[in-house]
Amino acid sequence: MKIGILGGTGPEGEGLASRLATAGFEVAIGSRSAAKARQKAQELTERLGGPVLGGAENAEIAASCNFVFLTTPFEGAPGVLRACRSVFPQETILVDVTVPLRFTKGIPEVLRLEEGSGSQHLATLLPEQVAIVSAFKSIPAKLMADVDDPLDCDVFVCSDVKDAKRRVIEAISRIKDLRPLDAGPLSMARTDELMCALAIRLNRRYGGQHGRFRVLGLNDAGGEEQHR
Amino acid sequence: MKIGILGGTGPEGEGLASRLATAGFEVAIGSRSAAKARQKAQELTERLGGPVLGGAENAEIAASCNFVFLTTPFEGAPGVLRACRSVFPQETILVDVTVPLRFTKGIPEVLRLEEGSGSQHLATLLPEQVAIVSAFKSIPAKLMADVDDPLDCDVFVCSDVKDAKRRVIEAISRIKDLRPLDAGPLSMARTDELMCALAIRLNRRYGGQHGRFRVLGLNDAGGEEQHR
Repeated sequence: MKIGILGGTGPEGEGLASRLATAGFEVAIGSRSAAKARQKAQELTERLGGPVLGGAENAEIAASCNFVFLTTPFEGAPGVLRACRSVFPQETILVDVTVPLRFTKGIPEVLRLEEGSGSQHLATLLPEQVAIVSAFKSIPAKLMADVDDPLDCDVFVCSDVKDAKRRVIEAISRIKDLRPLDAGPLSMARTDELMCALAIRLNRRYGGQHGRFRVLGLNDAGGEEQHR
Repeated sequence: MKIGILGGTGPEGEGLASRLATAGFEVAIGSRSAAKARQKAQELTERLGGPVLGGAENAEIAASCNFVFLTTPFEGAPGVLRACRSVFPQETILVDVTVPLRFTKGIPEVLRLEEGSGSQHLATLLPEQVAIVSAFKSIPAKLMADVDDPLDCDVFVCSDVKDAKRRVIEAISRIKDLRPLDAGPLSMARTDELMCALAIRLNRRYGGQHGRFRVLGLNDAGGEEQHR
């Protein structure tokens, strides 16, 4: 399966691309600039020693993949979606990992949006053939990018389209040490966005850049639990 | 130090009382009914084999402790606060563990409140001498009540009054296997309330009643991390 990473030249996109490629997916990097996308794809190919990672403009990637991750900063997301809107193939799955954050003196705040979550806001910009799924919001971009560090945490996956959510959960479950959890409908993305801001606060308070969440006590969710 | 548990005859209050008593605190149970409070205090004393646990009406407990936990259901919280409002001693710390949930066919939803979080809403009902701190919101009441099961998770502690927050963190850190984390100002209680609803959803989806959160990747927060 080919996965496109829209806005894939930043740390979050690069980390996701590397981890998905390592998990065996064919990955293509999109950017506003085709040159930048090609350069990043080449860098990653060299670093990972093999997997083919194509690079092109976002719209070209969107047109050629029906499974894409949106990994720009939130502010840039509407522009990317407008550029791709008319070319998304039928039955596209778009995984939104963006978080609508504003920083004041380093303290993050999640923007209040009329629709509830950032994902619900972006959903209003998508054509009908695209199913939006939210995921990875509470995993720090820095940790995604530090590909030699284990994730060893949970990804909360939210969508109103059950089949799309199931396919995203399947794909994510192939990434090493990462446990996808079905967190409910797209409105639950707001919780994951707030958890991102909490993780950033905790990173600042207790030191580190890799704060992330693990849910303990679920009988049937896979993943061995560790108890102290 | 004496800790009062307002509305302490339910599972959450009972669990907290037991765990605090086991940690060495003198605990007093409050209830709308003095008889019920006394009965619950006696039950707990017998079960724990020793610690003195007094029971009385909520207002009597509030008047005699300047460190109280509010453990009623959220709907009952305003009534308890009204009953205690005029008797809270100077420099009282009130730890709010309530979550403003509404259930529809078993699915939880966090109420939207003008003030932001449930804790901020309840803060408007408190006299000036009471500092409100939110904590324990995302730890299931069922788990709190199953006192032989380890918590082994994190408690997110939020307050606008730094000294009160510090004292609550110190008290909680004495409970076995539980790590209190400073999650910021009282407005962050909303995140913890939404995480409570997420935990309930995950319990339903994956089976169990003990879903709870642990943050990995903080350098300086204490607690050994387990990596798979």
